[in-house]
Amino acid sequence: MYLLVAGLAGSGKTTLVANYSRWLRENGHNVRVVNLDPGAEIVPYKPDFDIRNLFTVSQIMKKYGLGPNGALLKAGELLLEKSDEVLANPAFKPYDAIVFIDTPGQLEVFMFRVEGRKFVRKLMRRAPTVVVFLVDAQLCNNIGDFISSWALGLFLQIKLDIPVIPIINKIDLVGEEERKLIEAIVYEPETLKEVIVKKLRGLNAALAEDLVKLVADYQQSMRPIMVSALKGDGFEDLFSVVHETFCSCGDLS
Amino acid sequence: MYLLVAGLAGSGKTTLVANYSRWLRENGHNVRVVNLDPGAEIVPYKPDFDIRNLFTVSQIMKKYGLGPNGALLKAGELLLEKSDEVLANPAFKPYDAIVFIDTPGQLEVFMFRVEGRKFVRKLMRRAPTVVVFLVDAQLCNNIGDFISSWALGLFLQIKLDIPVIPIINKIDLVGEEERKLIEAIVYEPETLKEVIVKKLRGLNAALAEDLVKLVADYQQSMRPIMVSALKGDGFEDLFSVVHETFCSCGDLS
Repeated sequence: MYLLVAGLAGSGKTTLVANYSRWLRENGHNVRVVNLDPGAEIVPYKPDFDIRNLFTVSQIMKKYGLGPNGALLKAGELLLEKSDEVLANPAFKPYDAIVFIDTPGQLEVFMFRVEGRKFVRKLMRRAPTVVVFLVDAQLCNNIGDFISSWALGLFLQIKLDIPVIPIINKIDLVGEEERKLIEAIVYEPETLKEVIVKKLRGLNAALAEDLVKLVADYQQSMRPIMVSALKGDGFEDLFSVVHETFCSCGDLS
Repeated sequence: MYLLVAGLAGSGKTTLVANYSRWLRENGHNVRVVNLDPGAEIVPYKPDFDIRNLFTVSQIMKKYGLGPNGALLKAGELLLEKSDEVLANPAFKPYDAIVFIDTPGQLEVFMFRVEGRKFVRKLMRRAPTVVVFLVDAQLCNNIGDFISSWALGLFLQIKLDIPVIPIINKIDLVGEEERKLIEAIVYEPETLKEVIVKKLRGLNAALAEDLVKLVADYQQSMRPIMVSALKGDGFEDLFSVVHETFCSCGDLS
């Protein structure tokens, strides 16, 4: 099965892939790791497949005479063009391991464009596929930021028609008060009103409240979870939720 | 006043800035144009201020030894660091002209990060500021894509606490049937159910429906509008809505 790791730039995707894949291995699971980010500078794990062996964003800039914007879009096109070759690599064999896939640093370039969606469709046709969607806990210092970033996971769900497991990451970097605020947003949307009204203006306070309710109603996983990708907090929780989600859409071998 | 043009990569921001600013000038308005995209390759208008004179993403890659991902994030930091210098430029004088601001190609890098939000806050403290948010009409070939991209405008509203005017662009590139679908989504969310149920699975169909209702309830502009940034269709409509929005948050000089 495929476990796609997604999230806004800086949400901790690569750290999660590195540390959670090691944790899974230590707990007896067969895991392979794929890097699909052609713009990554440093990858702190040893990938079984690395898209950068086919192309990098820097190479595309030179080869096609493009700036960074154009090259990022071109990279998405190339990924789709070469998808049969990519998926033929043994790292993508879906039934003997959990195949962990680290996605491009810019969520927009991959998940919000037609090329990324088509690539994900190809994965879904081969084996059960689930997205782990990371949100940076530190965003809760601005409630509009946190709620909108958290709700982005729903957009992936509707765009890709795929189960999305939302994860609040970097929980080790927030204080007790912020952790309580996040718990309120994530677990008790109905008690949020007071907090939101204090922090946002009229119409946007009501919007924030409705958006939180929408996420609570529609997220497909059993419960959102809090982890520290860096320190390993919450990895057992994450495994249970991933397991539950795979069981509802296919086997977790 | 400031008119920020935002949208996912490829939604037509730069074309709108070029052609709509010319149209406004031809109709007797004083307009200045700012390019804030340090990753732009070609800018098809003559900017009164161009961030690329301070830095470009390619220069940042070389100077700091970063890959494209790191350089895009660094560009956002530099914009905020240099914001006082940038805003002191006469192009940003807010009360004698409509100041049109073309934003970075990746929405995520600018609007979904704290640096972009802080820059927008600085604009808002100087003069009334409105976001024009572009959605590519062609996305309606996948209803999940269209609805989620369209609803992204709401996220900007909640993140920035700012009026957002949603625009369906490239309306010249879709056929009659697609145009009718868009009109249904945008103008008659209550009649959408049938269309959505045909195209999405159970839970996601209900989610799409609720998301459309949420957008209809909360978008602050009078009505969403359809334009062709390339051909100039809908520019009068756009002007009326921009005018109405500025009147509700400040004067349109």
